[in-house]
Amino acid sequence: MAQLSSPKKDAILKEMALSLLKNKEFILRANKKDIAQARRRGIALAFLERLTLSEKRIKEMAECLIQISRLKDPVGGVIKAWATPNGLRIRKVRVPVGVIAIIYESRPNVTSDCIGLAFKSGNSVILRGGSEALTSNLAIFKLLKAVLINNRIPEGAVSLLATADRSALDVLLKQDAFIDLVMPRGGEGLIRRVIKLSRIPIIKHYKGICHVYVDEEADLNMAQNICFNAKVQRPGVCNAMESLLVHERVAGRFLPGMLKRFKQVGVEIRADAVTKRIFKDVESATESDYRTEYLDLILSVKVVKDLKQAIWHINHFGSHHSDAIVTDDAATAQKFLKEVDSACVYVNASTRFTDGYQFGLGAEIGISTDKLHARGPVALEELTTYKYVVYGKGQIRT
Amino acid sequence: MAQLSSPKKDAILKEMALSLLKNKEFILRANKKDIAQARRRGIALAFLERLTLSEKRIKEMAECLIQISRLKDPVGGVIKAWATPNGLRIRKVRVPVGVIAIIYESRPNVTSDCIGLAFKSGNSVILRGGSEALTSNLAIFKLLKAVLINNRIPEGAVSLLATADRSALDVLLKQDAFIDLVMPRGGEGLIRRVIKLSRIPIIKHYKGICHVYVDEEADLNMAQNICFNAKVQRPGVCNAMESLLVHERVAGRFLPGMLKRFKQVGVEIRADAVTKRIFKDVESATESDYRTEYLDLILSVKVVKDLKQAIWHINHFGSHHSDAIVTDDAATAQKFLKEVDSACVYVNASTRFTDGYQFGLGAEIGISTDKLHARGPVALEELTTYKYVVYGKGQIRT
Repeated sequence: MAQLSSPKKDAILKEMALSLLKNKEFILRANKKDIAQARRRGIALAFLERLTLSEKRIKEMAECLIQISRLKDPVGGVIKAWATPNGLRIRKVRVPVGVIAIIYESRPNVTSDCIGLAFKSGNSVILRGGSEALTSNLAIFKLLKAVLINNRIPEGAVSLLATADRSALDVLLKQDAFIDLVMPRGGEGLIRRVIKLSRIPIIKHYKGICHVYVDEEADLNMAQNICFNAKVQRPGVCNAMESLLVHERVAGRFLPGMLKRFKQVGVEIRADAVTKRIFKDVESATESDYRTEYLDLILSVKVVKDLKQAIWHINHFGSHHSDAIVTDDAATAQKFLKEVDSACVYVNASTRFTDGYQFGLGAEIGISTDKLHARGPVALEELTTYKYVVYGKGQIRT
Repeated sequence: MAQLSSPKKDAILKEMALSLLKNKEFILRANKKDIAQARRRGIALAFLERLTLSEKRIKEMAECLIQISRLKDPVGGVIKAWATPNGLRIRKVRVPVGVIAIIYESRPNVTSDCIGLAFKSGNSVILRGGSEALTSNLAIFKLLKAVLINNRIPEGAVSLLATADRSALDVLLKQDAFIDLVMPRGGEGLIRRVIKLSRIPIIKHYKGICHVYVDEEADLNMAQNICFNAKVQRPGVCNAMESLLVHERVAGRFLPGMLKRFKQVGVEIRADAVTKRIFKDVESATESDYRTEYLDLILSVKVVKDLKQAIWHINHFGSHHSDAIVTDDAATAQKFLKEVDSACVYVNASTRFTDGYQFGLGAEIGISTDKLHARGPVALEELTTYKYVVYGKGQIRT
């Protein structure tokens, strides 16, 4: 896998995209079986929505594979090159991680996205999707695997754990002799289970409790637009704002207009006592509100004494994902950017930009709230590791 | 910790070195207690040797802290900087990992080395040394912590688990809410225990089963010098050669002289049947010999059919640490360097160079045989992670 040329991989990715389009009826038929079974089990509407494929969604899956084929191949890239005093030439070179297991929940499109990203970065992948989407996942998997086999790619390049038996995961997570990395994608319950069971290194995404802090030196008009965007543009995603912090010196000027605008589009506000004195018509926030990822049109609000309290609040209650300050004061911005311990820290921009594509890194497999190996968007480069390649002329150590 | 300036950190490191030198009697007294207790327990000589401090060893510990003070501070380094089409300026900046727990065995000098490296890279460190070295470790720890406290560094910067109770480790390894990274340093038993118990990400070093492969196109004189150096110069370390592979076309010319030279310095040879036909006076190798890290003057030898078999053998029996080929054929070298899946791969040089200092990376905390985050030498840079710092002018996502 690590030795495949980029043109060959890209041609195969395009073939995979074509196969999805040509066989859309086959995929939709499989998906209908999953939907029917989910309906019989009385599964929630939001869940059903995630499970359901359509012609449009299959087209998007194909489009994603095409996009991956256009991204730069990270494998073989030289990270650093230097020579030592005794004449050894050392190169730190990007290589695939090896075998990656991806554990995900209901969306069947994840199957093709993950196969595409893993294949392009030279990795073998073992997929374990949600049991409710098994028939859909298997259909997509079979189509893409057939393309690989036709192109004489080794059998082990992609695998799917095609069983609804939950104990299969327990067995999988003990295979640290064969699997280099596990990436769980799903709710906190799934992730905690994986951490408890796994002997294999993990890259994970817990939660996105993202903050915007409106400083006393903020351009309040800019602040309002950023906050509105961060909360409302797509509230169900991990980089949306869940908590708004406002400096006490501008709270009286900023909050009434801001909260009114939020209420007009149906945002439920849960606020501290100071906010409630400024803007009456809101719920009271409990401490647990500041720890909650709503993924919905709900916002917690707090007025803070100063920058220091804002930073403390974010580091203490947040999830180290994405946090922004709005300020015109450069020193204040620097302090915030340095001291907030999050994967992505922003000054004067919406937290919604935390995304592999928006960052210009290409398609992503997820956002990591971990600190090791990959932090923030996990795109192709983050699916690689490195090796040191050393060229000598007979050097020995004295 | 992450905000400390480099000059301040370096001055403190020098103060730490001075304190070790000034208080050497205090350290040696503590060490004598550990040695006396170890003797009463009838502990092995090699172990006692590792446990024993001397004036010279304390001087080396101080020298190591001085060296760390001279290394470049990785914190704040910009890994990459770019702008997106909508004008966001993004910087990928090095930051400390956070809180690192280091679990080690008998050498008390590890206590000061780890405190120095963790402090310079802006991390907090929690140390858990071997119970047999507890009094020595505690003495060193108290001296260095006093320097930190005098300089108003937060109390939590360094901690030592000062108990011989083994269950303390079990509790420590569940603190994934507070500890970002665990580094076990010691035998395979310790490392397997840590992997089984830990919910915290781990960087580890299993074994160093390093190979030299002498190709049919090798300069046999160079090959002999490299092999001799890789095995004999310091046999007890992880980057020493444990297994010698020789192409069948040069085995008859290469092995007699090479093995004779090894025998002259007392290396015990364990070889396959083909080698034994060429050089009678050696033991037979079993399959388990090829999986063994001797850390001693013992060498397993095997004659291989071709490059492909050599690569397969290394990937199958090795530990993915450091492996070398000796050859004058560039294409053969390239194939070896690409296909051998090890942290460090060499052409025409001794495996003994796998070392942070030899690589020019400065002092190292260990060698990682893991693939994630840090592979190969773990020096200051590998003790950091990164964050994305994003500068906007009011950008929102559309």
